[in-house]
Amino acid sequence: MDQHNITTSVLSLANPWLDFFDAGDQAAAALCRESNIWFEEACSSAPADRLFFFAALPLSAGLPSCLDEIGFLATQSHVRGIILSTAGTGAGLDDASLDPFWAALAAAKLPIFIHPHHGLPREVFGPDGGDRYGHVLPLALGFPLETTIAASRMILSGVFAQHKELRVLLAHAGGALPFLAGRLQSCVEHDAHLMHEGESAAAVDVWQAFRDNIYLDAVTYSAASLKAAVETVGAGKVMFGTDHPFFPPLDGGQQKWASVTSNLIAAEGLNDEDRSRVLGGNAIETFNLRAGSTASLK
Amino acid sequence: MDQHNITTSVLSLANPWLDFFDAGDQAAAALCRESNIWFEEACSSAPADRLFFFAALPLSAGLPSCLDEIGFLATQSHVRGIILSTAGTGAGLDDASLDPFWAALAAAKLPIFIHPHHGLPREVFGPDGGDRYGHVLPLALGFPLETTIAASRMILSGVFAQHKELRVLLAHAGGALPFLAGRLQSCVEHDAHLMHEGESAAAVDVWQAFRDNIYLDAVTYSAASLKAAVETVGAGKVMFGTDHPFFPPLDGGQQKWASVTSNLIAAEGLNDEDRSRVLGGNAIETFNLRAGSTASLK
Repeated sequence: MDQHNITTSVLSLANPWLDFFDAGDQAAAALCRESNIWFEEACSSAPADRLFFFAALPLSAGLPSCLDEIGFLATQSHVRGIILSTAGTGAGLDDASLDPFWAALAAAKLPIFIHPHHGLPREVFGPDGGDRYGHVLPLALGFPLETTIAASRMILSGVFAQHKELRVLLAHAGGALPFLAGRLQSCVEHDAHLMHEGESAAAVDVWQAFRDNIYLDAVTYSAASLKAAVETVGAGKVMFGTDHPFFPPLDGGQQKWASVTSNLIAAEGLNDEDRSRVLGGNAIETFNLRAGSTASLK
Repeated sequence: MDQHNITTSVLSLANPWLDFFDAGDQAAAALCRESNIWFEEACSSAPADRLFFFAALPLSAGLPSCLDEIGFLATQSHVRGIILSTAGTGAGLDDASLDPFWAALAAAKLPIFIHPHHGLPREVFGPDGGDRYGHVLPLALGFPLETTIAASRMILSGVFAQHKELRVLLAHAGGALPFLAGRLQSCVEHDAHLMHEGESAAAVDVWQAFRDNIYLDAVTYSAASLKAAVETVGAGKVMFGTDHPFFPPLDGGQQKWASVTSNLIAAEGLNDEDRSRVLGGNAIETFNLRAGSTASLK
């Protein structure tokens, strides 16, 4: 944090979180509680307003355990949301059985940070699964495209129409969803199947979900993409992130991480007001962090 | 065309082109020739400077047949490029055996229009393959993501580093590639496997491919995405397209197609000069069409 003049961070467990437990394994619930207590203590013992965290939830253990954990989180002072994979309880985030889960998160006013983990099947990257390019294709494309599909399914299933207070922060600026939002909305409007479903289909409005429910981190590595992200969801809903601990310098001796500075450079493409909001103000407001904290190139 | 005040069009065979032939089937070559002759005659018999076409190539019949067809195309007056799927001869567009193919296209100064057809495997869209959303997920996401992966593989394999004169026009504004370009470049720079490959990896520069080789159509259905596309490849390399015959109005009685007008509306987000180029000037220059032709909302 100091190397990049980052004053305040929101931490979280990294993927695969607790998704590695088998479905129904209650051990996930116990380990989840232990993890969340660890994060709360770590944040509490740091200088004031330095660290907050997105809590894990025990999806593998089932919804009752999750609802129980959401209740516990209300008693912790450094929780600022929860982190979630795209898997849900196994059938994705458009699974109708998640309805009480979304309702509980909305009622608890806990924002949801969605981060990819599963990627796409190897074969989409070529006969060798893209191995000749190292990890480039799964990391550069597989992860963002997983997020794009998962968030689209949430929108199309009516999660946001049903739970209007739900706030979802998408990792990596939404994958590719901001760029594809117009096409998604156009396909919704041109689909005979959805048209004939009547009211439920009419409730699906991609742009409204972007306006009301979807937040994006600013991890785009490109000014053009960052501007598109800002224009798609609004300048008050895009916020700087490091994606730490991913993409450390290959030369371990470097002080600054190019993966971090490239996103600070991308923010230089914004006007002063938007840049200030993206580099700190938006996160402070959205997650109720300390006033005045920003990231900077200096 | 008249309904949308489009004065000049570049036609092509629609997907799946000749990809439905089995590999090695020479019948693909004969049908390809027949198709290209049909297009040449159709364009020749239209009013002057009204119609041009992207020719098909018989990939299924193998490279010698393709090289033969490229020779034939040089004798036809309305050819302005070729149209290609992402499959190549079966192993994708980063297949090293395509090298003579790219060389022949570059030598013939034939731009390549790449359009998706195969999409992504059903399972990435959920347990039901996304069927509950009609065709929305395969059309809105599957197609663009196919293009994104295919074009990325071309860049990473060094096709553009090897064939610097190659010009590739990507359908649907490159799928999601303009938005993910920064991440792709960052992943290339952070990949130990590529780093250790030395010179061949050093030849891969995503931004250079965008600057020098990649053109995008303006089929984004969103001003934010169109601006990102323009900023990524340059204002001189994005050009209006209809995606015709896809996405006709569900109400067959409508005179104008929303799928076309929404892309004209998106272009309203550009400044006057860029909009004029995107709506006609760029295509005229890139494909040597009649001077003065544009599309407009009027």
